Amino acid sequence: MAPSQQEKYDIVIVGAGPVGIVLSLCMSRWGYKVKHIDNRPVPTATGRADGIQPRSTEILRNLGLKRQIMAFKPAKVYDVAFWDPLPGGQGIHRTGSWPSCPRFIDTRYPFTTLVHQGKIERVFLDEIQKAGTTVERPWTIVGFKNDGLDETYPVEVQLKSIDTNVIETVRTKYLFSGEGARSFIRQQLGIQIQYKDPISYVWGVMDGVVRTNFPDIETKCTIHSDAGSIMVIPREDNMVRLYVQIASSDDPDFDPRKTATAEDVQATARKILQPYWVEWDRVEWYSVYPIGQGISEKYTLDERVFMGGDACHTHSPKAGQGMNTAFHDALNMAWKLHAVESGLAKRSILSTYETERKDIAETLLSFDNKYAALFSKRRPTAGEVGEASHTTAAAGGEEDEFVKTFKSSCEFTSGYGVAYKPNVFTWDATHPAQSPLFDVPGVRLTPGRAFTPTTVTRLADSNHVHLEQEIPANGAFRIFIFAGKQDKTSKAITDLAANLEKERSFLSVYRRADIADVSFFENHLPHSKLFSICLVYAGEKNQIDVDSIPKILRDYHHHLYADNIPDVRVPQATYAAHEKLGFDVEKGGVVVTRPDSHVACTVQLSEGSGTVDALNAFFGSFATKPLGQDSQQSRL
Amino acid sequence: MAPSQQEKYDIVIVGAGPVGIVLSLCMSRWGYKVKHIDNRPVPTATGRADGIQPRSTEILRNLGLKRQIMAFKPAKVYDVAFWDPLPGGQGIHRTGSWPSCPRFIDTRYPFTTLVHQGKIERVFLDEIQKAGTTVERPWTIVGFKNDGLDETYPVEVQLKSIDTNVIETVRTKYLFSGEGARSFIRQQLGIQIQYKDPISYVWGVMDGVVRTNFPDIETKCTIHSDAGSIMVIPREDNMVRLYVQIASSDDPDFDPRKTATAEDVQATARKILQPYWVEWDRVEWYSVYPIGQGISEKYTLDERVFMGGDACHTHSPKAGQGMNTAFHDALNMAWKLHAVESGLAKRSILSTYETERKDIAETLLSFDNKYAALFSKRRPTAGEVGEASHTTAAAGGEEDEFVKTFKSSCEFTSGYGVAYKPNVFTWDATHPAQSPLFDVPGVRLTPGRAFTPTTVTRLADSNHVHLEQEIPANGAFRIFIFAGKQDKTSKAITDLAANLEKERSFLSVYRRADIADVSFFENHLPHSKLFSICLVYAGEKNQIDVDSIPKILRDYHHHLYADNIPDVRVPQATYAAHEKLGFDVEKGGVVVTRPDSHVACTVQLSEGSGTVDALNAFFGSFATKPLGQDSQQSRL
Ligand SMILES: Cc1cc2nc3c(=O)[nH]c(=O)nc-3n(C[C@H](O)[C@H](O)[C@H](O)COP(=O)(O)OP(=O)(O)OC[C@H]3O[C@@H](n4cnc5c(N)ncnc54)[C@H](O)[C@@H]3O)c2cc1C
Ligand SMILES: Cc1cc2nc3c(=O)[nH]c(=O)nc-3n(C[C@H](O)[C@H](O)[C@H](O)COP(=O)(O)OP(=O)(O)OC[C@H]3O[C@@H](n4cnc5c(N)ncnc54)[C@H](O)[C@@H]3O)c2cc1C
Repeated sequence: MAPSQQEKYDIVIVGAGPVGIVLSLCMSRWGYKVKHIDNRPVPTATGRADGIQPRSTEILRNLGLKRQIMAFKPAKVYDVAFWDPLPGGQGIHRTGSWPSCPRFIDTRYPFTTLVHQGKIERVFLDEIQKAGTTVERPWTIVGFKNDGLDETYPVEVQLKSIDTNVIETVRTKYLFSGEGARSFIRQQLGIQIQYKDPISYVWGVMDGVVRTNFPDIETKCTIHSDAGSIMVIPREDNMVRLYVQIASSDDPDFDPRKTATAEDVQATARKILQPYWVEWDRVEWYSVYPIGQGISEKYTLDERVFMGGDACHTHSPKAGQGMNTAFHDALNMAWKLHAVESGLAKRSILSTYETERKDIAETLLSFDNKYAALFSKRRPTAGEVGEASHTTAAAGGEEDEFVKTFKSSCEFTSGYGVAYKPNVFTWDATHPAQSPLFDVPGVRLTPGRAFTPTTVTRLADSNHVHLEQEIPANGAFRIFIFAGKQDKTSKAITDLAANLEKERSFLSVYRRADIADVSFFENHLPHSKLFSICLVYAGEKNQIDVDSIPKILRDYHHHLYADNIPDVRVPQATYAAHEKLGFDVEKGGVVVTRPDSHVACTVQLSEGSGTVDALNAFFGSFATKPLGQDSQQSRL
Repeated sequence: MAPSQQEKYDIVIVGAGPVGIVLSLCMSRWGYKVKHIDNRPVPTATGRADGIQPRSTEILRNLGLKRQIMAFKPAKVYDVAFWDPLPGGQGIHRTGSWPSCPRFIDTRYPFTTLVHQGKIERVFLDEIQKAGTTVERPWTIVGFKNDGLDETYPVEVQLKSIDTNVIETVRTKYLFSGEGARSFIRQQLGIQIQYKDPISYVWGVMDGVVRTNFPDIETKCTIHSDAGSIMVIPREDNMVRLYVQIASSDDPDFDPRKTATAEDVQATARKILQPYWVEWDRVEWYSVYPIGQGISEKYTLDERVFMGGDACHTHSPKAGQGMNTAFHDALNMAWKLHAVESGLAKRSILSTYETERKDIAETLLSFDNKYAALFSKRRPTAGEVGEASHTTAAAGGEEDEFVKTFKSSCEFTSGYGVAYKPNVFTWDATHPAQSPLFDVPGVRLTPGRAFTPTTVTRLADSNHVHLEQEIPANGAFRIFIFAGKQDKTSKAITDLAANLEKERSFLSVYRRADIADVSFFENHLPHSKLFSICLVYAGEKNQIDVDSIPKILRDYHHHLYADNIPDVRVPQATYAAHEKLGFDVEKGGVVVTRPDSHVACTVQLSEGSGTVDALNAFFGSFATKPLGQDSQQSRL
């Protein structure tokens, strides 16, 4: 079939595990034509990954899926308890415990949510369907090439129905491998896996309902005993998950296919938990799970065929990072493809997918090593643990190596340790965009890190809302204008609005083509599909004069807010959001976040054109069109 | 058919509106055999009541239904805005706004949740089904008599299938009318309705999607204009509800059957909203709704046949109280029937259903009058409003009549104004139970009012939980032991446990018959189906020595807590729950709440038997069996 006659897609996604479903949902919702296949006849039924980390919970909420996930009534893990052998074969005792997400991490969800991958996948699959894409199964990929025969759809992909053996050849702009550890696409590209830790492991994982007098059965525990080690993770519906290490490649008789029956694991667990008793009411799922710690050398060769999730990085299940890292990979990929395909960003920005996400995977792997060592070599004492749960990031002071490692680990495992390094999307002094207004003095936000949660009152309906969630995951950059006190910044806001209106502002240049037909009820993207704007005043709701806010900002009528809700983290503050983020209410300032809610830059709010000039320079550094050159009035 | 051959029920519920469904759900879940009928062929589809008040949201959460309701993505009303005519026919302008649930009300849900009755009913109907009862429809009631022919099932009820005309005669312990305003049962009993306000009204209610430039369309508003008055209530899915008064019996040409078409109402709304424009995308529901302000003289004649909801009280829809009052009626009825039928309480306590709920209905009606006057006679100014939203209950100071009325109104409409008067369940100095330990000095809880929300850490799994929600609506009394610092109160706690263990303690006397077979996973009622116990220590989680807690309290292993979570309402407090409620952490104290979460009494925590003696005296004042006479050890 000639390329011109082949069915064409914006993206072909292979694999409907965590990375595939997040990417598929974003691209489908944002209006792209998606072909999505999976080689299993049905979605995951039980088992596999089950821990949703705090930052991932934010992402799920931003995708509008948190409520459905929470409807499963998942167990929530706030703490990890450590159990160790007593001398003389007297069994185990608790030596300490600590919060899995200590208070120095400012999150609304200081817990891991335990619900198994199958349920999470089902929620996504329903939403993907609603967004117009159906995952076809069982289908597999049998070949692909970036032959460029069609300039717009350069990649040809051959897919095969496993039921009928029919082969379908399609063309696509992008091909994405979310195939998991044994990625066909990665193998075809000849991309190697680098093994970090030369040791590989075999793990047994069992979900079931147990009766026991072990007091921490509803708490996440790592238990070391003379009879071996085990990790206990509470689950929904009185279930519990046990992880048992069955073999390690540094065992003298290592066999990567070594296995153990469910009964073996139960017997081991009984011995380990002495002096407590344990009995199984039922076993829901059991699996043996061999794993090596590897990372893919490249995530793409041509910025047309990409990979993510387990196809790029594998590691032990101990820290429950597999699914969470996959979510982040997918969201990162999604908004960057959108930035390019919507015409906003130059194609070259796609290289940041690999640089950003591979860097995180490297951190994950070295963290995984450290975590393993931490678990097997040294037990914390209760005293240290108490410290860790009380010390705040700001407090400073002396801490021993263990507590330090632990603290950085918590940040990492919670997902809040993800700190993208400076690049075109993450401003620092080396960024091509230069203006004295970048980096607002006193502001406690770090470009590259997730935006801090704050609660404000929405003026349109007086609802108390979570500002960081006010823009749903819509692929747009988010501009939060902290306008301080209205009487102090009214000229700066007027000037900002006037400069946004100019014909060559980022907002005008990327104005929606369909602006005349935008729905009356459009709340987030009235002007441009690429930018959402929020305006927050320090003050009581009734003190804010909405009529005097410039029209271009009032068009975001659902995104005007009063900063008047108390926050327990800044209990003395009158304007808690400004204060927590570090904005001076006499001056205000602007935060730009990327579509994934990581801070891109902060800009001072100034009278004149400076603020918008800085924003134009920032967006202009990767935009396809020149920004900010002239000063005509726009048609917005 | 002889009485002995008739099908027998614990309760027959007629009507599946708000009052019927709450009662049916509770009774079905608590193990009673329920016959439930409704004369409509299908549940409510659209329209009718739609505002769930803050306190009702607590109740829904306690029934485990909040998540399902919130899944409808309801609109939330935090504020009410007032609009009035400008002089000289220039249209309307906003004169003020105020929070519908100001900060002096300590609630987790300071908003009204807007979702229509049909959706709420559907959620209940599903849960009722899960609990083993099916609402039969269309069935009606054609006769009943309390003939006492069967001592246990004294009431005979005749029900008729509207489809087949088949009549079924059943016997029951109780018959409940949740039939709404035109109750057949009330008529048969010859109970009169007293009309409070001689004026009756005809209201038009319209739900639809509108486009408008009226800035408060997402806010609840009352609008007075030269062209008439209207109330605007935002709804889910960009909908809005308009209430228009069509006729009033003090109009010179009053006709209670006066009506208006949807087009009439739209035309009136257009005029009223001048200078703003408004257009309808669609009308979802429209109804004309005649209403008189009436209250039933009696809620029961024989304490076997009861009524609740609109069968007992009707009033204007302005304050959105109909459905909410029905919820409270039903919950009050349910736990009292359970207290009697479970063998805990003497039958005479059933009289408190009428005394408590009729008193609230009287308050509702006089409030409805006041509210109407407030709306039609006097407009607040913006300045007064600002005050109202800032003043806290504690602050005191001078307030004008309007602000005072407003504040008490807010408390009432939010559901937190419900304050049951002293009676056998609501301790005051006149209560039959006497002990110097009643009423803990400094404690800011009022018997008769809902228990204040506090957040604590659950020791079993370290989850941060809402203490007031930790016992689900299970029909049991709730005993919250605020144990202060463990080292200060350890003797008092040991003594309390030892006295609970005694053979004639309330807990031992009402021990579960099936105590040997209680599920390993039973969290709330391990000893008695009538009492749930929670134990809260002031301290960090790791500082609490669980092993030293007496066994009888440790049996509530899911109800041991650390008071260590900061609270924005007591920002300086180390032990926020103790501090907020007013408990001295050196001394502690006990709070008893009724099964509906209203505070029954508070008791000082003392060494020796005094605390349990006081609790025995309290429960003994309505118990069927003598409590607290001897000092043998129980078998618990
Ligand atoms: C048995 C097992 C147990 C696990 N247990 C845990 C755990 O306890 N804790 C934890 O944190 N992590 C665990 N993991 C890892 C975790 O599930 C992964 O990190 C996570 O699923 C990665 O998501 P992914 O989307 O990258 O890949 P996957 O979830 O592996 O999804 C890949 C999908 O692609 C499909 N696929 C593969 N190849 C093709 C092809 N050629 N054509 C079409 N479809 C294809 C697969 O069938 C699969 O549906 C486990 C993994 C496995 C396999
Ligand atoms: C048309 C209409 C509009 C309303 N609009 C509002 C509003 O906008 N705002 C507001 O706050 N309140 C409104 N209300 C009032 C609110 O709906 C009621 O206060 C609330 O529903 C009371 O609940 P209930 O269970 O007591 O009675 P209802 O909700 O009236 O339920 C009674 C049920 O019993 C059934 N029934 C009656 N007689 C029999 C019988 N003999 N046999 C079997 N079944 C029987 C009925 O069909 C009905 O299903 C409205 C009521 C009506 C009727």
